Amino acid sequence: MRYELYYWPTIQGRGEFVRLALEEAGADYVDVARKRAARDAITTLLDRKAEKHPPFAPPALKAGKLVIAQTANILLYLGPRLKLAPKGEGERLWLHQLQLTIADFVKEIHDTHHPISSQLYFEDQIEAAKANAKQFWRYRAPKFLGYFETVLTRSGGPYALGRRLSYVDLSLFQIVAGLRYAFPRRMKRFEKRIPRLIALHDRVAKRLRIAAYLGSSRRIAFNEWGIFRRYPELDR
Amino acid sequence: MRYELYYWPTIQGRGEFVRLALEEAGADYVDVARKRAARDAITTLLDRKAEKHPPFAPPALKAGKLVIAQTANILLYLGPRLKLAPKGEGERLWLHQLQLTIADFVKEIHDTHHPISSQLYFEDQIEAAKANAKQFWRYRAPKFLGYFETVLTRSGGPYALGRRLSYVDLSLFQIVAGLRYAFPRRMKRFEKRIPRLIALHDRVAKRLRIAAYLGSSRRIAFNEWGIFRRYPELDR
Repeated sequence: MRYELYYWPTIQGRGEFVRLALEEAGADYVDVARKRAARDAITTLLDRKAEKHPPFAPPALKAGKLVIAQTANILLYLGPRLKLAPKGEGERLWLHQLQLTIADFVKEIHDTHHPISSQLYFEDQIEAAKANAKQFWRYRAPKFLGYFETVLTRSGGPYALGRRLSYVDLSLFQIVAGLRYAFPRRMKRFEKRIPRLIALHDRVAKRLRIAAYLGSSRRIAFNEWGIFRRYPELDR
Repeated sequence: MRYELYYWPTIQGRGEFVRLALEEAGADYVDVARKRAARDAITTLLDRKAEKHPPFAPPALKAGKLVIAQTANILLYLGPRLKLAPKGEGERLWLHQLQLTIADFVKEIHDTHHPISSQLYFEDQIEAAKANAKQFWRYRAPKFLGYFETVLTRSGGPYALGRRLSYVDLSLFQIVAGLRYAFPRRMKRFEKRIPRLIALHDRVAKRLRIAAYLGSSRRIAFNEWGIFRRYPELDR
């Protein structure tokens, strides 16, 4: 099966959690909007009047006749097919639960720089962003990161499910990499509190296919249009 | 199977989306924290050191040996069991995708009154809240509500899947009811743009078990501690 991924071609964004899973599995896929002459592919998909299951927003995955949207939902579907999730219902629900908690965290990370509205520039909400980032690092980041550290402790490690890699581990890698990019000073101070999560990040980064992907032009660089943005004002 | 729901006993909150499904199905369930002498049940569940699959936050559902958290994940599990979701994979993923979009909307609704942090009082972030609510009603509410209106159009109605009720319809009922509570003036002006969604709300409210539930003491009243809060400053 050749999968088609529909996501913005200039950012990692939420699409990156899907890209990492496809790359780790060595799946046959096309990152549609990154193909030349296909830059309007996303709008075409979203606006298709005949689509009975229209996505609210990218990312979306075409798999045969299915069109699936919502990052965690795409991974729920891909997981067992890419051998990045177990097949038993209890374990699949648990993994999905973790991915949904990652999705919540991603939204809160995004809101540190855009707490008022994504429709306004950062410069137009900078004071609110500073206040949000301060509270985020006081309460929310420690709570989320501490939670995932606990999960790795209880699983016995090195992965969220124990010895077997899953798509959640790839997403946790991305969280650590993204926070390091966006908040280098705060992360430097914080990392000693989450040793298992950092070890997981390093282990994933060294996996053959992930390392090849990260070194390729398929990996879009972090930038100031995605979820993780480096604004020194927010990283005291 | 007797289900156990773990959720805050004083608010509708995210737990309400699960309560509505259990009520519509006439399921055998206990709303654990609302039982006298069980008010600390949630902390006990969250703090249980032996729990291999710890929830990040309520709601959580105990179903036999399974502990499932994340609202949409709970509904994914309950859906086919309560006959509120079809069994085919494609339709189940579509329904779940809609529920995840509702979850995103719920978070944005919550953030209208707490854009800086849930840890601070409303009064300490009132200017940011006003700015957020303004943008929310300019861009986000029309986008989300218009999207669900489109879904109802494409399904042929009256429900998200067409003629068959699902848990998503119960959640959409709750969204309309909540927005009417929190933003009575804005909703009054907006409702004519979403006739199918309003008709869905009215239809769900009249269902026998839902009507009985809404009239019972099991339905907690809307209040200023939940997701939907009535602050006149935000409802010009």
